[in-house]
Amino acid sequence: MKYPKRFLDLIDDFKKLPGIGKKTAERLALHVITKMDDDSISLFSENLNEIKNEISHCPVCGVLSDGNCPICTDLLRDKNTIMVLSEVKDVFVLERTQIYHGLYHILGGSIDFSRGILPEALNIDSLFKRLDNVDEIILSLNGTVEGELTASYIKELLKDSEVKVTRIAYGIPVGADLSYADDQTIFRAIENRRKYE
Amino acid sequence: MKYPKRFLDLIDDFKKLPGIGKKTAERLALHVITKMDDDSISLFSENLNEIKNEISHCPVCGVLSDGNCPICTDLLRDKNTIMVLSEVKDVFVLERTQIYHGLYHILGGSIDFSRGILPEALNIDSLFKRLDNVDEIILSLNGTVEGELTASYIKELLKDSEVKVTRIAYGIPVGADLSYADDQTIFRAIENRRKYE
Repeated sequence: MKYPKRFLDLIDDFKKLPGIGKKTAERLALHVITKMDDDSISLFSENLNEIKNEISHCPVCGVLSDGNCPICTDLLRDKNTIMVLSEVKDVFVLERTQIYHGLYHILGGSIDFSRGILPEALNIDSLFKRLDNVDEIILSLNGTVEGELTASYIKELLKDSEVKVTRIAYGIPVGADLSYADDQTIFRAIENRRKYE
Repeated sequence: MKYPKRFLDLIDDFKKLPGIGKKTAERLALHVITKMDDDSISLFSENLNEIKNEISHCPVCGVLSDGNCPICTDLLRDKNTIMVLSEVKDVFVLERTQIYHGLYHILGGSIDFSRGILPEALNIDSLFKRLDNVDEIILSLNGTVEGELTASYIKELLKDSEVKVTRIAYGIPVGADLSYADDQTIFRAIENRRKYE
């Protein structure tokens, strides 16, 4: 049977998303055709089409923003603390817990020599331009080799600075990805952060 | 943190798809923003927007079609056999196995009195208009109470007709959904179909 081209194309679109295989992609495309009403589909289509136009990364901290960064422009946040994260998605994990109320700094990845990701490819330099009035830098990087390497690299560059550098510690299993941690684990990791030396 | 509205909307769109929860929806929306290029996103958006315009159900058999039904217009298919299926998605399961080469007839569901799905709500009448030159009707319905009920209803209506009514049998576990069966199970179920009486 020759399937309609548009249908195969939509299956391909779904298949390109992370964690979605061929069978699931087929199921999702069929769901769109057979179960969704026209309005829902056209809203979905419009949201996809507009998302890159409307949403960008804050040029200061890297958090997703639709013009006014929801973190940097929030007057209630503690401007003296910056938490360094590897990826944008980690912000969602942290914000869900409602434990941390300082600023963020997204590196956009971790140093990984085996994949050719050098420190220059990350937003590390821009962190050092933000140190005025900052008392503490909390390194909340993944518990992986690359996370450790990135943390020690930043720590080394900050060794002559007066800012306190801490690192979340308890709870994140070695080798695991930050975004899979549950709220309690993140709570403990923040509570028990230690001076990084 | 107040997330950008368009981002929350896209998460909602993904969350409405079957089998996709809140966390997965967030991951998918983030993937769209941070990893996909503009061209892929706008193609995805266009495919969604156009799919209902371009693809419809064949008015004869109910299979997905972009104007010319890929089954009914296929000269190589056996026009003397019609396989009755509950849902459009079941066609994909059957076609993947490449075992069956006859026509299809999609009912659009199963009789289910508890949910108020009566025979009149299904494409059953239209099946009887297709019986000229048909030797065999193969009932490939789910192995559930509703599937059994639907099969026996159709069988009863065909009892005075000369067409042979068979039913796929071996391999589909009782209580299971047809679309989860593997190719081998479906192969046996078709090979071992028995006269339905």
